[in-house]
Amino acid sequence: MKISDAEKQALYKVIYSRRDVRKDFLADEIPNDVLARILQAGHHAPSVGFMQPWDFILVTQEQTKRVIKQGYEQARLESAQQFAQDKRSDYESFKLEGILEAPLGICVTCDRNRNGPVVIGRTIKPEMDLYSTVCAIQNMWLAARAENIGLGWVSIIHDDVLREALDIPEHLDIVAYLCLGYVSQFETKPELESLGWLPREDINQLIHKEKWRPKS
Amino acid sequence: MKISDAEKQALYKVIYSRRDVRKDFLADEIPNDVLARILQAGHHAPSVGFMQPWDFILVTQEQTKRVIKQGYEQARLESAQQFAQDKRSDYESFKLEGILEAPLGICVTCDRNRNGPVVIGRTIKPEMDLYSTVCAIQNMWLAARAENIGLGWVSIIHDDVLREALDIPEHLDIVAYLCLGYVSQFETKPELESLGWLPREDINQLIHKEKWRPKS
Repeated sequence: MKISDAEKQALYKVIYSRRDVRKDFLADEIPNDVLARILQAGHHAPSVGFMQPWDFILVTQEQTKRVIKQGYEQARLESAQQFAQDKRSDYESFKLEGILEAPLGICVTCDRNRNGPVVIGRTIKPEMDLYSTVCAIQNMWLAARAENIGLGWVSIIHDDVLREALDIPEHLDIVAYLCLGYVSQFETKPELESLGWLPREDINQLIHKEKWRPKS
Repeated sequence: MKISDAEKQALYKVIYSRRDVRKDFLADEIPNDVLARILQAGHHAPSVGFMQPWDFILVTQEQTKRVIKQGYEQARLESAQQFAQDKRSDYESFKLEGILEAPLGICVTCDRNRNGPVVIGRTIKPEMDLYSTVCAIQNMWLAARAENIGLGWVSIIHDDVLREALDIPEHLDIVAYLCLGYVSQFETKPELESLGWLPREDINQLIHKEKWRPKS
């Protein structure tokens, strides 16, 4: 099946306008058919040995979100100690999640035993199943953006908090907790770039021909 | 910026028609501007703390590809031993890479020290930088498909083979070796599904409401 020039441009538009969203969430519920399309986009990600190791836990209850938010707050305080003094106050001023404001949370897990124990393509690189799950998340991220829905990945939280809050059994790895919702606006740039935390790397310094070479 | 309905449909078309490509590669070279767009799509993936930890090593030389192919062959033989007897001959019959036929190889690495040592969002979940790199790969995979270029991820190879063949220093993690090229056709389904190795999972069994529940 051929992809037309207009379709290609559409993909690039989605890729370039996708943001990690932590603010500007609206309370509007995500309709079921829209959510189903986002999850199906995840389910049609590549997976090693076609193992499809992912599960999606949908969180809408306020009480559960409060427990997760508390876990985030604790992990955030703990993390602040790791930053050098001159960066710490910047770090503390950033809004890094929208757990309570986003109408929907999705916890994405990886069942490393699914369709195993021996999985084609995972025999040498055991982390491939986790990587497949991340491919699913990136598909969901782009699908959400194409639905004009913001998505933010909350990584400042201990797995144990999510495991307990969501009854996730020990045999599943927790890959991500995502916050989704319609937004009042999408930022045009990554927030950490706009805020001057870090600049965009020069891509020419990241491309190497035939062999890896140190940066010039 | 709003994404239109037509643009949304285009994204889904690309997501659903993306395949892991191991055969049907054509020898035609990928033009520089096309390759630049695929790499820029990767570079505009989300990254934890905006760390952009990826590098891209482009491989076109026949001699290098032969070394990598040899590494694959060895890892494939080693892997075959892990499959139960009744699955082994199927496994051995599958074509799982297009290292020599694809005109371009791209090794994608993760520099876990870049823009560190303390990275926002990686303080609790150290694997987030590797996951960011996988997001870049998934963006490249979709961009390649939108350019009507096939991409296959070769995971049956030891990192050491790639490290030596491509002069990759010890401080970089090797995430993927990708094969890219125009193709005579894209399969309509994942090959391991068509070949009857595994069926597509029922997505309804993978979605959980509020808490994780065992499969019914």
